[in-house]
Amino acid sequence: MRKIDFHKIYLSGNEKKYIEDALNKGNLSGDGFYTKKVSEFLENKFDLIKVLMTTSATHALEMAAQLIDLKEGDEVIMPSFSFSSTANAVIKTGAKPVFAEVKLNNFNLDPADFESKITARTKAVIPVHYAGISCEMKEIKKIAKKNNIYIIEDAAHAVNSFYQGKAAGSMGDFGCYSFHGSKNFVSGEGGAIIINSDQHKLIEKAEIIREKGTNRSSFLRGEIDKYNWVGKGSSYLPSDILMALLLAQLEQIDYITKQRRQIFEFYNQHLEKFLNEDFLEIIPQIPEDRQSNYHLYYLKLKNQKIRDFILKKLRKKGIETAFHFQPLHASPMGKKLGYQKRDLQLTNDIAASMLRLPIYPGLSAADLNYIIAELRNIFLEIKQAGV
Amino acid sequence: MRKIDFHKIYLSGNEKKYIEDALNKGNLSGDGFYTKKVSEFLENKFDLIKVLMTTSATHALEMAAQLIDLKEGDEVIMPSFSFSSTANAVIKTGAKPVFAEVKLNNFNLDPADFESKITARTKAVIPVHYAGISCEMKEIKKIAKKNNIYIIEDAAHAVNSFYQGKAAGSMGDFGCYSFHGSKNFVSGEGGAIIINSDQHKLIEKAEIIREKGTNRSSFLRGEIDKYNWVGKGSSYLPSDILMALLLAQLEQIDYITKQRRQIFEFYNQHLEKFLNEDFLEIIPQIPEDRQSNYHLYYLKLKNQKIRDFILKKLRKKGIETAFHFQPLHASPMGKKLGYQKRDLQLTNDIAASMLRLPIYPGLSAADLNYIIAELRNIFLEIKQAGV
Repeated sequence: MRKIDFHKIYLSGNEKKYIEDALNKGNLSGDGFYTKKVSEFLENKFDLIKVLMTTSATHALEMAAQLIDLKEGDEVIMPSFSFSSTANAVIKTGAKPVFAEVKLNNFNLDPADFESKITARTKAVIPVHYAGISCEMKEIKKIAKKNNIYIIEDAAHAVNSFYQGKAAGSMGDFGCYSFHGSKNFVSGEGGAIIINSDQHKLIEKAEIIREKGTNRSSFLRGEIDKYNWVGKGSSYLPSDILMALLLAQLEQIDYITKQRRQIFEFYNQHLEKFLNEDFLEIIPQIPEDRQSNYHLYYLKLKNQKIRDFILKKLRKKGIETAFHFQPLHASPMGKKLGYQKRDLQLTNDIAASMLRLPIYPGLSAADLNYIIAELRNIFLEIKQAGV
Repeated sequence: MRKIDFHKIYLSGNEKKYIEDALNKGNLSGDGFYTKKVSEFLENKFDLIKVLMTTSATHALEMAAQLIDLKEGDEVIMPSFSFSSTANAVIKTGAKPVFAEVKLNNFNLDPADFESKITARTKAVIPVHYAGISCEMKEIKKIAKKNNIYIIEDAAHAVNSFYQGKAAGSMGDFGCYSFHGSKNFVSGEGGAIIINSDQHKLIEKAEIIREKGTNRSSFLRGEIDKYNWVGKGSSYLPSDILMALLLAQLEQIDYITKQRRQIFEFYNQHLEKFLNEDFLEIIPQIPEDRQSNYHLYYLKLKNQKIRDFILKKLRKKGIETAFHFQPLHASPMGKKLGYQKRDLQLTNDIAASMLRLPIYPGLSAADLNYIIAELRNIFLEIKQAGV
């Protein structure tokens, strides 16, 4: 039987070479040769003012939360359909995450629900560009501006995604990227914070937070003659080894994206017709004003029973698929924050009835045909016999 | 002219092989094959109950601070002669670092000064095992026990150091290791937290904090069928690539330590006689009940003027040396916390008048002879002409 993993790392070819070079250069800690290369690459490719590489997207979010001085009493609106790090970055400062609904079309933050949840305490919003398709940033920016609210883009899924020609991560006050092993372009563990401002003071503050609360970055540029402890901070510099790995990946960014696009389009082409059936409700659609990086491919089924049925059937055929986020509001921690499961029904429904299919460059045409053939069989079974 | 770096990474030989294997295994994110290998290695080698690998020693300290539920109103005693991360880990929780003096012999926390600074608010002490020589843990543990205070060992310098037969990091409630590029055994960026307890609840809490506030670790062990957001947390898992690198280093732990010991002893042997001169006050001495990992070698000169004179003269001869910590209490952040420079005079004196010499396996006999010859010339100059 064919065996198809849900996810597999794609190596572009230069990973070993660059890592070996980094080892030979001998600077294995942060902000070495490859870190500089990678941040410049991202700045140039996506027209970003300032990129600081980080140990993870989690840490990029934590940096953003500190950069806007979040504190107890503040509220930050975000979709419940996200990863724990989006909320923890807020909670760690003492501020409170406020969970909003997503829209059914792309599982992205619903601008109307975001607006309805604004209070005098709201200090920021964190739109999550789910699956590599950007949120409705025009609407979100308009609402944020009117209410004097910071925007932190959680673009963990959305490196190389665009909205009206602008890169994900470039539209808010801050953007956060992930290069975790599960993403399109990987450093193993890693991320970046994007500072969409050329304010010297703000960038300096970010450098200090990232560099253990010291002004070492200024020291390394020769602006001061020794460095010192000047504020709060943590250690958010990724090893140059990981940045060497990432550079090799980013050099193949167009190729990797093209491979993913072909798989995405193949799935859409073969699954579209099943949208007439009542058990399949949604397959991803990319709005005309957006470019996706094709990070995820998913089906939204009619209900959890059908989703679980398909997942189990595919597994029996050697095809690994996965559901995704447990809604944050309905988690044990969400309950501690005062939420009840019923508070966000659409989010609950999506989380319970969506299924992600494999999408990565290593998938062969034979793999894809096999997946579609098996899906078709299962759909037929559901249609004829029910679940 | 000979050119001698202050520090150089030592590659043991298997680094490339293991990294290549990790790339081929395809799990580049956290808690993969090599992470498991490395934590087991440390547990076995140092007789530790539980080791969790982290992205840095900074993050290990932050985890420890969260594990003892530090909060506003709490105080934590630590030497001012340390790195900013020791204090930031405390400040990030809202608690207050209280700076104590070190002793002149090993620049380690002075137990008497620690005891004198205990108040009703003191919740923990962070002894820093400076330069790889353990603090006086018997005295510190006695005082901590009497006052019901947690001990978090900052063993960033002290992987493979011992006190009365016990490994640094194994004696407090928690220990924190560093594998930063500047350390004896490196992963580029990286660290570990040691939990000196087999309490299941405590280890589980650490796993949750480390894994973005989720119970994913329990999930991966098959204890629960899906993982969820259950508490505060961050992302402290190092990439398996870095742990592959570290395993290669740890396999050579005895060789690396032996090489360092030889350099340490060479320096001591040649510099001892200058202790009679009034400009050289201290060279490191390892107490009989301790084993060092020979992380640093330093001279304590009579004053800053002499230290700076030697540093500049050596640099002119192509020999890079370095001073070390700017005392935390005297830094801009220390001042914000209410300290004045004069508060800890011995610490000020040590910081101003100590100089670190190169110590790493790549140094040749010729390098070492050159360093000693040049030092001797400079000493002679000081003796004859003054500074």
